[in-house]
Amino acid sequence: MTEYATTDLEQMTPKEYRSIVRRGEFTGSVLRACRGYVMADVAIVPKEYAFAFFLFCHRNPRVCGVLDVTEPGSPHPLSVAPDADLRTDLIRYQIYKDGKVVDEPTDITDYWRDDLVAFLNGCSGSFDWSLQASNVHYRTIGAYRTNIRCVPAGPFRGNMVVSCRLFESAHDALRAIQITSRHLLVHGPPVHVGDPTLIGIEDLNRPEMSLVEEVAPQQPKEIPLFWACGGTLRNIAREAKLPFMIVNYPGGGFVTDKPSEELAIL
Amino acid sequence: MTEYATTDLEQMTPKEYRSIVRRGEFTGSVLRACRGYVMADVAIVPKEYAFAFFLFCHRNPRVCGVLDVTEPGSPHPLSVAPDADLRTDLIRYQIYKDGKVVDEPTDITDYWRDDLVAFLNGCSGSFDWSLQASNVHYRTIGAYRTNIRCVPAGPFRGNMVVSCRLFESAHDALRAIQITSRHLLVHGPPVHVGDPTLIGIEDLNRPEMSLVEEVAPQQPKEIPLFWACGGTLRNIAREAKLPFMIVNYPGGGFVTDKPSEELAIL
Repeated sequence: MTEYATTDLEQMTPKEYRSIVRRGEFTGSVLRACRGYVMADVAIVPKEYAFAFFLFCHRNPRVCGVLDVTEPGSPHPLSVAPDADLRTDLIRYQIYKDGKVVDEPTDITDYWRDDLVAFLNGCSGSFDWSLQASNVHYRTIGAYRTNIRCVPAGPFRGNMVVSCRLFESAHDALRAIQITSRHLLVHGPPVHVGDPTLIGIEDLNRPEMSLVEEVAPQQPKEIPLFWACGGTLRNIAREAKLPFMIVNYPGGGFVTDKPSEELAIL
Repeated sequence: MTEYATTDLEQMTPKEYRSIVRRGEFTGSVLRACRGYVMADVAIVPKEYAFAFFLFCHRNPRVCGVLDVTEPGSPHPLSVAPDADLRTDLIRYQIYKDGKVVDEPTDITDYWRDDLVAFLNGCSGSFDWSLQASNVHYRTIGAYRTNIRCVPAGPFRGNMVVSCRLFESAHDALRAIQITSRHLLVHGPPVHVGDPTLIGIEDLNRPEMSLVEEVAPQQPKEIPLFWACGGTLRNIAREAKLPFMIVNYPGGGFVTDKPSEELAIL
């Protein structure tokens, strides 16, 4: 296994990054790759469910900003990364059958079918680049399941998962709300500010999916902001119980060719 | 036929307006109704084409901002006007079969089917309220077919239709670009500024669909801005040649319960 330093990963182009993932040379988290580029979570459903999934995205725009939708049977996201192959260019996948994970492969070529449609949904890792470029200071803890029900569409339903970022300065928290509002397709503005128990998070210091090795306890002056998170897709896959559905593994998303600023709305 | 003065129309609530349309008491243009509320063009397709039409909207966001999508068979737009009935609450419709208009009824109850899905796409008449509230001065001429091809999706393809607004003041033109950029779901920012021949409009003084009784010729200092227009949907209906499709008649759109500011992005 080739080792890649964080700085190497950050400086790679999306094409370079996808090629090392495709060759199986990188198995870490997508979140530090390709500074400035838009990352995507990927949900893949049979065409007969594609309209209902599109409707789910429309009804839950904070959860699912739609960056691209592939033609049925095509693994190529023509709008955001035409030379990529969604069967090989993600770090790891989860294969769902009837709502249960039956496999977690690093390549889905053998699972691919002519009727599959892939939805690329913007990931909040994308706006972290913009927050950092703006000298906004914060720390990310991890992801949490909430009591917020997504608006259902067809079989697609489930609770929202959020990521939490903690801000020591009110100024920085306000800037983060402004900046992320520009990045509508990668979750946009927060869905909650303040008391985590109001959205069903019992203990902020115990995320379900930690993004740091050891979670330092929240300090009284730290302001928590909560953004919808692509982890929601795995809840949806579990509850929708489709005969077949694929979602990327946590942290195993996709990097597009689009700079974050290109897709910002203003 | 009851007469309604412009001021009466502007001051009606969407509910009042829809009720006079439903009773056949108003047959004018939707564009002066319900100051401050979002208007929609409506395209109705059989469910088997609904995914492709959703994809068309996603690929052409300036043309088709999606305000709401009905459940198959339901004529009620639950997100934006739950008590409305799309079969009766528009002024007039066009029924397309194989790309040809076969009827232009004022009520589509007899045409309704259990497999129909309605898409409500934001109409630029909605942001006119915001421009006027901001003291931006301009005149609207009408709508034009352009040489801009929409990005196709499935059977849906065709040239973009635009509306043109003329601004005497550069300041007002710039404000209009800013303001309409906030109203992303009702066409958002312009698709063109300046020379109309660059987008295939031969004579600005001769719109295909005039919105004024007599078009005063463009003055040298007037800056033209062009926005995508819901009239595009009728081009799409003609070219897609579905066995069955319904689009609202020009100027015969729908008024939602949503104030324009509620749906603005920032």
